Amino acid sequence: MTRDIKELIKQMTIEEKASLCSGKNFWNTKGIERLGIPSIMVTDGPHGLRKQDGSGDHLGLHDSVPATCFPSAAGLAGSWDRDLITQVGVALGEECQAEDVAVLLGPGANIKRSPLCGRNFEYFSEDPFLSSELAASHINGVQSQGVGTSLKHFAANNQEHRRMSTDAVIDERTLREIYLASFEGAVKKAQPWTVMCSYNQVNGEFAGENKTLLTDILKEEWGHEGFVVSDWGAVNERIDALAAGLELEMPSSNGMGDRKIVEAIKNGSLSEEKLDQAVERLLRITFKAVDNKVANATYDKAAHHELARKVASESMVLLKNENNILPLAKETTLSIIGAFAKTPRYQGGGSSHVNPTKLDNILEEIEQVVGTEIAFAPGYDLKTDDIDQALLEEAKEVASKSDVAVLFVGLPDRYESEGYDREHLHIPENHRSLIEAVAEVQSNIIVVLSNGAPIEMPWLDKVKGLFEGYLGGQALGGAIADLLFGTVNPSGKLAETFPVDVSHNPSYLNFPGEGDKVEYKEGIFVGYRYYDTKRIKPLFPFGYGLSYTTFEYTNLVVDKKELQDTETVDVQVTVKNTGNVAGKEIVQLYVKDVKSSVVRPEKELKGFEKVELQPGEEKKFTITLDKRAFAYYHVDLADWYVESGEFTILVGSSSVDIALTETVMVHSTTPAITKPVTRNTTIGDLLQNPDHAVVIQAAMAEMNQDSGMAEALEDNPEMFEAMMKYMPLRALAAFNNERFSEQMLNELIDQLNNKKSQIV
Amino acid sequence: MTRDIKELIKQMTIEEKASLCSGKNFWNTKGIERLGIPSIMVTDGPHGLRKQDGSGDHLGLHDSVPATCFPSAAGLAGSWDRDLITQVGVALGEECQAEDVAVLLGPGANIKRSPLCGRNFEYFSEDPFLSSELAASHINGVQSQGVGTSLKHFAANNQEHRRMSTDAVIDERTLREIYLASFEGAVKKAQPWTVMCSYNQVNGEFAGENKTLLTDILKEEWGHEGFVVSDWGAVNERIDALAAGLELEMPSSNGMGDRKIVEAIKNGSLSEEKLDQAVERLLRITFKAVDNKVANATYDKAAHHELARKVASESMVLLKNENNILPLAKETTLSIIGAFAKTPRYQGGGSSHVNPTKLDNILEEIEQVVGTEIAFAPGYDLKTDDIDQALLEEAKEVASKSDVAVLFVGLPDRYESEGYDREHLHIPENHRSLIEAVAEVQSNIIVVLSNGAPIEMPWLDKVKGLFEGYLGGQALGGAIADLLFGTVNPSGKLAETFPVDVSHNPSYLNFPGEGDKVEYKEGIFVGYRYYDTKRIKPLFPFGYGLSYTTFEYTNLVVDKKELQDTETVDVQVTVKNTGNVAGKEIVQLYVKDVKSSVVRPEKELKGFEKVELQPGEEKKFTITLDKRAFAYYHVDLADWYVESGEFTILVGSSSVDIALTETVMVHSTTPAITKPVTRNTTIGDLLQNPDHAVVIQAAMAEMNQDSGMAEALEDNPEMFEAMMKYMPLRALAAFNNERFSEQMLNELIDQLNNKKSQIV
Repeated sequence: MTRDIKELIKQMTIEEKASLCSGKNFWNTKGIERLGIPSIMVTDGPHGLRKQDGSGDHLGLHDSVPATCFPSAAGLAGSWDRDLITQVGVALGEECQAEDVAVLLGPGANIKRSPLCGRNFEYFSEDPFLSSELAASHINGVQSQGVGTSLKHFAANNQEHRRMSTDAVIDERTLREIYLASFEGAVKKAQPWTVMCSYNQVNGEFAGENKTLLTDILKEEWGHEGFVVSDWGAVNERIDALAAGLELEMPSSNGMGDRKIVEAIKNGSLSEEKLDQAVERLLRITFKAVDNKVANATYDKAAHHELARKVASESMVLLKNENNILPLAKETTLSIIGAFAKTPRYQGGGSSHVNPTKLDNILEEIEQVVGTEIAFAPGYDLKTDDIDQALLEEAKEVASKSDVAVLFVGLPDRYESEGYDREHLHIPENHRSLIEAVAEVQSNIIVVLSNGAPIEMPWLDKVKGLFEGYLGGQALGGAIADLLFGTVNPSGKLAETFPVDVSHNPSYLNFPGEGDKVEYKEGIFVGYRYYDTKRIKPLFPFGYGLSYTTFEYTNLVVDKKELQDTETVDVQVTVKNTGNVAGKEIVQLYVKDVKSSVVRPEKELKGFEKVELQPGEEKKFTITLDKRAFAYYHVDLADWYVESGEFTILVGSSSVDIALTETVMVHSTTPAITKPVTRNTTIGDLLQNPDHAVVIQAAMAEMNQDSGMAEALEDNPEMFEAMMKYMPLRALAAFNNERFSEQMLNELIDQLNNKKSQIV
Repeated sequence: MTRDIKELIKQMTIEEKASLCSGKNFWNTKGIERLGIPSIMVTDGPHGLRKQDGSGDHLGLHDSVPATCFPSAAGLAGSWDRDLITQVGVALGEECQAEDVAVLLGPGANIKRSPLCGRNFEYFSEDPFLSSELAASHINGVQSQGVGTSLKHFAANNQEHRRMSTDAVIDERTLREIYLASFEGAVKKAQPWTVMCSYNQVNGEFAGENKTLLTDILKEEWGHEGFVVSDWGAVNERIDALAAGLELEMPSSNGMGDRKIVEAIKNGSLSEEKLDQAVERLLRITFKAVDNKVANATYDKAAHHELARKVASESMVLLKNENNILPLAKETTLSIIGAFAKTPRYQGGGSSHVNPTKLDNILEEIEQVVGTEIAFAPGYDLKTDDIDQALLEEAKEVASKSDVAVLFVGLPDRYESEGYDREHLHIPENHRSLIEAVAEVQSNIIVVLSNGAPIEMPWLDKVKGLFEGYLGGQALGGAIADLLFGTVNPSGKLAETFPVDVSHNPSYLNFPGEGDKVEYKEGIFVGYRYYDTKRIKPLFPFGYGLSYTTFEYTNLVVDKKELQDTETVDVQVTVKNTGNVAGKEIVQLYVKDVKSSVVRPEKELKGFEKVELQPGEEKKFTITLDKRAFAYYHVDLADWYVESGEFTILVGSSSVDIALTETVMVHSTTPAITKPVTRNTTIGDLLQNPDHAVVIQAAMAEMNQDSGMAEALEDNPEMFEAMMKYMPLRALAAFNNERFSEQMLNELIDQLNNKKSQIV
């Protein structure tokens, strides 16, 4: 339905317009009955609906209507599968329609700066390209059903510690290349109906009052068409927030925010035009929701559960498979150890906590595949970290009688949640000692982990098989059964680095900050960008994951070896399944700047594809790279910039397993920034510019006579050359003042500035 | 002689006063004949005189009069011996007197931020406490002879790359705790006659124009009584420099600087009082030099050579001694391999380059000890990095015929010098391949390194014995002979960390910066502070070094277990020589803050002693710790601050070999900073203050009723607790607006601010 929204706004009083800028209650926006403006409902997400009934508490924390609980984002990301995540989005959209929910609050595109962040399970990756691609897929899926999303938490909400007050201090290049890039791709590719601003401050301003973020970058530069909603309770000063571009305050401010807006309009501290713009954005989305509402929508709970199972099996990552202990034969005598096998950990705590439509019992799902009962021992008490010796003895007894013991351990609910961060990467003492105890009696151990983020594994050499199960959603049991016995061939890969020791993480010395300030001193070196460049060996690298089959990479071909940064280059590669079972490979493409005048990571992910291959089958496919694949964010230019030179294209199965490389030459088309020559411009810099070089060489030739330089040059040519290169113009006078006066220096500078200069 | 300098200044014209503020030529200050003000001479140092004769070139780079070349500072530091370094200072002072030199330009107290810095060989350590102690010892030695020093390069001149233009961007705490602390101790303990400002900028201002550094901190806070001299050619704007506290411009500005000063006084942009203060500082030192001049001074060249030999043998560090291959028996059939054995690398390039009075030939010194000729092969050509296959074959041939091969390799002159930095930590290809080639035919290899800074050692497992010889000065040959055969028991320890890979260095991602900006993003985590805290295993840790005997640590006793930060604590420890030969142990004391509200290194060096012990002998000694040993620099307090709590005192033989620990409780006597309560003060912070807690608990008790919080608390108690703790006051309104208005919030804040608050 087409409406003249501008006309509608003209009919509204200031009070009515202001009223639309905050919620009616915890989950609904306000409507205006006399103008036919409806109220819409939003609910938490993102891996399932958390719709609270009418009597919802004031913190929005307690139970919600049943909904399918898909794997959380950390798990979804392990699939690296755009299409699959879009399917999840479609399913979520259907459930929203069925529950009359207009906007699902998610997905989260925050970067995993530290594995300690308590909410990492809700985020996709440490890499902005991967994160933005997966977030866009999620958004596209949900929104294809006429339901909105809320891309969150914008921006730099990379920790829970003091999240409502802390100031994330991040240099502009890092903000652009890492933390904003993860949102940028999602906004540009999927146009989320809403974007949710975060609680924290970014470089001294609350995200919700940060005009640079909300208006200059999000709305103007990236072209976001929807509105910005505050994280619940994130509004500090309502007028500053509205002026910065935060349209909707949530939850209800009980009229307080609205009154302030009216007052500000009346006293002139806020223009009515600004309010009108906000209302226009709010109404466009409100009516979009109404117009896309499907009457009497329902969804197929069983089908969604099946989808959740498929997704979980595609997301879990096989990290170790010594002597091909996996897949298990159904005839193998198994024991199942660990309380998680009956009481699974399948999602994280906080606002994303879903009330599932159904919940797999892992033990039962495995028994169903095998067709018999399997010996089980809990091994630990879920409620505590304390070691229970009797449970350990029982577990050893059970494990010793089997051929293979499958252990279910990881992080209990209390270890990771929205609201607080972890302080270490250990699993509970009673989980660790369970592995060690069983290892005393059993050498064939398979561990299946349930956790939302990396853990340290000092016990790794005691186990032969290892699955990172992440938080697998309500159908994790079926998925694990599928993977253990090879019904599904594992194809997940890590979307984040697992460090040997938390201290190796790049943010370790600056996480979670001091008082209300956290400085991102590691800069752009987040995740594998750091481990790669610093040559610190991780426990498991970014992009890593095993399969029950093997793949071969051949024929890396680029369609041009030399290009301008305005052109694209097609990179073609062939991947073959060289094993005996069908499988899927996640092919990763990284780009490395061979030589750069600014510091750059060893390599960066710029493309990926998940390919399904039958045994012996090979597929050729193409990834296209554009300017952005080679560029860094140039702060002085305030734009993405490709420095002319060679770039290596690396294709492989993980960030450290590179199978093929190729080199291309990319030429910049950006005119260089001209900096004026000053008394502190170095001779080396001048010599790099042909126009300047002529002038300065003439000046130096005269100076060199009889100054002892020839002799010095002979004594230590390397030093002499360096001294000359690094010498500022003014020093010509200092070291040659008998023949080079201040006046001559100034004349020389004038002469140089009249030439065209080209120093970036 | 007593003079009334103030009276003298009154007799001077402005032009005369200005004239004293710059050099007469490259090495001499100006005098004023009519007032009996003499000219004095300064020369480069610091490990030997570099006095150029009258016709010195304009860059001050070519040959100088012969002088004793002691080990450079990197070597001296390996001794960790205050007394020995003072002895070197005394010898240098004698040579200055003999050569009519008033001020020796050194020592250098810059911190080794990166092993790549080309001038690290002139600096002592990566640790400011060790560096400042050794610099003070050096200064005290020289100045005891009535000769001045110039503590340099103040400050943050930690790289040669673009040293005349680059801006070192360093946060204040890091500047204070690391980079300035190294100067602070030396200034306070030894009062150097002059301090030399560096070329670079520090936080946006040239060091020579940085009033905070030169006046506020150096002169006023630390009480420096002498004058500041510019590094040669470091003056940018003369008036800004003088106003900031740079008294002497060097070299001569040919009257340019002087004219500017006169002009500035006349046009009022500089006060004459400021100029008078500068002249007073200049004259005090000038007359001090004159008054302390020893007529017809001479020195004993042979004795100084012997001292140089002793110092070198105390400085070199035994890094590896597999199967006690060392010390060598004189009967062992040796081969000596490597061109350095005949043409030693014994000092670094640049302004510190000394023309030695004599130079040991290492091969000959060893032959002298053994009493026979030893087979020798050069192995590589000194002039090139290229591998010469014939030289390698000859070396293998020679090595294969001996029982033990001693290889002399390291960094040639061109690899490290003032003026430019290294780009990697490799030794030349032809040195590396020499080790590998000899290892093919000889399993008993001892390597003696000559280099001014760390190298990577991928070949380490091929050698059984390894000495870090540093740049050992003119008597290095004798020292090496003494050490190889056990005439002297090695006692040096590393004053810096050797990383496995240069990429592990803390500054790696931010060295040497981009354009004219280098950001010290690693902050206080320099050297072992980083490797320790990040748990990255170095190749050889800070403080490490082997001996031919063994030591045992016992009886660590503190004289109090609890103290106020205004008190000192005495730490007593007993060390025993448990081996068969006499030896010296460097006992190191580190302090660790057990729990801190700011990020702190795992531990920091706060005391050390070098103890000589006969076999079986034990000595008890005491190290006293004061406030500074426990403090960090508190930026808001603008002072050193001890956070009350437990501190561990760790005593051992290196930064990673801790033998004994003890814990003390230190109480702060500093009143806490009171921060006003605002709408963004968190509830957790308020609860930490008993006065505030009463108020806020009352407010919250009322709020909790009927808000659904009880239920939320039951669902996820960890999250609920964290949410409350991190919630700013304003959010009480956001989440409880029905019962908590903006007005109530403001009243609550007023109420809280009337209470005494105590949040730091």
